[in-house]
Amino acid sequence: MNAPLPDHVLPRVDLRPMPAGMLDALRARFGERCSTAAAVRDQHGRGESVYDAQPPEAVVFCESNDDVQFVVRLAHEHAVPVIPYGTGSSLEGHLLAVQGGVSVDVSRMDKILSVNAEDLTVTVQAGVTREQLNREIKDTGLFFPIDPGANASLGGMAATRASGTNAVRYGTMRENVLGLTVVTASGELIHTGTRAKKSSAGYDLTRLMVGSEGTLGVMTEVTLKLFPLPEAVSAAVCNFPSIDAAVQTTIQIIQMGVPIARCELLDANAIRAVNKHSKLALHESPLLLMEFHGSEASVKEQAETVQALAAEHGGEAFQWASTPEERSKLWAARHQSYFAALQSRPGCRCQSSDTCVPISRLAESINVSVDEAEASGIPYWIVGHVGDGNFHLSYLMDPDDKAEVAAVERLNVQMVQRALRLGGTCTGEHGIGLHKMGYLLEEAGAGAVDMMRSIKRALDPKNIMNPGKVFTA
Amino acid sequence: MNAPLPDHVLPRVDLRPMPAGMLDALRARFGERCSTAAAVRDQHGRGESVYDAQPPEAVVFCESNDDVQFVVRLAHEHAVPVIPYGTGSSLEGHLLAVQGGVSVDVSRMDKILSVNAEDLTVTVQAGVTREQLNREIKDTGLFFPIDPGANASLGGMAATRASGTNAVRYGTMRENVLGLTVVTASGELIHTGTRAKKSSAGYDLTRLMVGSEGTLGVMTEVTLKLFPLPEAVSAAVCNFPSIDAAVQTTIQIIQMGVPIARCELLDANAIRAVNKHSKLALHESPLLLMEFHGSEASVKEQAETVQALAAEHGGEAFQWASTPEERSKLWAARHQSYFAALQSRPGCRCQSSDTCVPISRLAESINVSVDEAEASGIPYWIVGHVGDGNFHLSYLMDPDDKAEVAAVERLNVQMVQRALRLGGTCTGEHGIGLHKMGYLLEEAGAGAVDMMRSIKRALDPKNIMNPGKVFTA
Repeated sequence: MNAPLPDHVLPRVDLRPMPAGMLDALRARFGERCSTAAAVRDQHGRGESVYDAQPPEAVVFCESNDDVQFVVRLAHEHAVPVIPYGTGSSLEGHLLAVQGGVSVDVSRMDKILSVNAEDLTVTVQAGVTREQLNREIKDTGLFFPIDPGANASLGGMAATRASGTNAVRYGTMRENVLGLTVVTASGELIHTGTRAKKSSAGYDLTRLMVGSEGTLGVMTEVTLKLFPLPEAVSAAVCNFPSIDAAVQTTIQIIQMGVPIARCELLDANAIRAVNKHSKLALHESPLLLMEFHGSEASVKEQAETVQALAAEHGGEAFQWASTPEERSKLWAARHQSYFAALQSRPGCRCQSSDTCVPISRLAESINVSVDEAEASGIPYWIVGHVGDGNFHLSYLMDPDDKAEVAAVERLNVQMVQRALRLGGTCTGEHGIGLHKMGYLLEEAGAGAVDMMRSIKRALDPKNIMNPGKVFTA
Repeated sequence: MNAPLPDHVLPRVDLRPMPAGMLDALRARFGERCSTAAAVRDQHGRGESVYDAQPPEAVVFCESNDDVQFVVRLAHEHAVPVIPYGTGSSLEGHLLAVQGGVSVDVSRMDKILSVNAEDLTVTVQAGVTREQLNREIKDTGLFFPIDPGANASLGGMAATRASGTNAVRYGTMRENVLGLTVVTASGELIHTGTRAKKSSAGYDLTRLMVGSEGTLGVMTEVTLKLFPLPEAVSAAVCNFPSIDAAVQTTIQIIQMGVPIARCELLDANAIRAVNKHSKLALHESPLLLMEFHGSEASVKEQAETVQALAAEHGGEAFQWASTPEERSKLWAARHQSYFAALQSRPGCRCQSSDTCVPISRLAESINVSVDEAEASGIPYWIVGHVGDGNFHLSYLMDPDDKAEVAAVERLNVQMVQRALRLGGTCTGEHGIGLHKMGYLLEEAGAGAVDMMRSIKRALDPKNIMNPGKVFTA
């Protein structure tokens, strides 16, 4: 396997400096919405990845399609990189300005453009976050289910093909984006898809853009599917004697076709961190945190089926959280697990795996990884969207301890190679970014990566759109 | 709107003759599996479209990836067109050899390569048909739901992003293809996707290929999602006083989030043809043909909800078909409606619309089209996957009556323009082919079609893969 980039401090190569005339033009149009302040640039040149920041030369806070087109056209003219920025929650180094350039911050493009409740669709600007969307549509009786944990922007979620806790029932951004407005690498504005539920009209540009990590254009508007709020929702926690028991239960839930809405694994390490951070008193053994959506009868039926399966694997009786407040508290704790774990080892950085395998291979994928983690002696914790075969084993490493960093990287490589052998993927939802370019090559093969590269070159001949990410140009 | 190609007899332009050396090489390798017989060529140069055949110069019956690679490499070397062929059920002229070339028939690539029942996935060769697949996996307790009516090949279904009667619940080929093996335009073999349920690993080549209508490569293997056979299935027929009443019922079913598995509209004309052809005695007024999947309790709950909605719109009591035999008879009749209708006007050809709109716009989309059809005096019939906002208004026209052909084309243009105004698409499931290139331009806009063209040129610089389809090169 080609080694992934090995360290959290990356060399800067191929810097493509912005000519003074371009910066002048940006300042003339955007005034103080064009910032070159070190703190702003630094914040925009990182994310939640292990890498140190590589700041862009300037950050432009765009407020309209026209703004984005203006920046991209200038960048195109001067062959300067453009890096789209939503909320900065990327985990794989997508935001580092490895070749310099301009960060296009779309966080002020935060308007919901149209809610079509009767069609179960909504069109938003790319900077709208998922929590904002659900807040603003709560009176319609509909919701947008995709929930990657972070309160990410919907543009960013589309860019990394995000998924998260509800994907086991509702799908990922791949299934839930109906259409996009995109500023292409030459600064043109195009629309992809329609509001119709399905279409056979030409190449699926929507899904080509979804997951392209900013390398093919800047998404400025996103049309999404919405879902009716379920008549009944209930959440349950179930502790198991081992990770394997929780995983075997999950496998059976999926194989039986139970339409479970959320099926999350937390290991004892994750629960310890969460209990401390969120002042909870969850039993510190592996648990499944589950949610059931449907009619009253269907929720009851699902829960009974799952209880029976869990009992067969030594699962304890469900602890129920049926009020919205109890549920919110549980899910908030789950979502804060990342920060909770980071706090458990001061000064550490978190290197999170993201493999996803066919459901029948989940036990092997996760159990061997746990054995390796235990043997390493490096602090780690696990959360997982196990209903999808996707889990995150995250090492808490001292970034200044070269041996530990190298050990974590070796362990990550082993996890990825195992997932690929089992018919899976190196990334279920975080994307390739900087960190997984070697893994992608191993997974997809040189021919498929060449095809991606050909598409990139055709649509972005000057290689200005988030260059240096996903694959080498 | 750019006029679509107006007639069923297309001029042949830009013929790219096969050099004698290429035909010799094909014959040397394939023997009688390479045919130049007029009848074989003629059959491969048509489909179920309104167009007269435009035969390829040769047909090669491939039996392996190597076979396909051999043909494509030769074609690439000699810049000769390649047209993939499955079962010939295309409706939009995809198979016409408008620039000559070789038809690559994959119908003998009909092996199921691996069934992974515990993962709910299967990998098949591209020539496997959907009925064959369901027959061969019936002992696993799983099924593949996508059902476009015709017993199409799974490669062909992927190529046109097919859907059909079950899509309202299970999605289309877009949602159900996990991965592909593709022979690229240069004859390389690549694999896209994995068996994992989700992935964020690089560009979504799978979905770029799905719906590309053979213009980017030859799909030779398809990995698909399977679903557990539902515990309970029941089908019901409900007649309505008007098409509008049936459509309003459908809109409410969808807006309420009822997980109906099939929701098909047939108008009185379709029922008359079906009754005659399939010796049924369905009441000849607009009807919804519905199917419910789930647990016993869920099926009951769905049916009660839908009955109540139907009653509000004057729907009659459901007539139930609960045994597999009764259900098969009903669905066979539905699937034979195309041939049933064709027989109702001897010598006619059928021009079928395929618009798809957001569900709230379905009534306007369909009602105005019916008014126009009635006013035209030309025989027509309607079937529709109305739960998805997709319907087919099909005119039975005399292909030698130029005025009638032109009138049908005008009516089609009006239907498409209306669908686009309502936020929909010109094709829900049949694809662009030859017939809808003008519509695609109108729907997607020149910028998006240019992006498609750039991708095509990058991946197929010699324009050998099914040239002249989807958009002009």
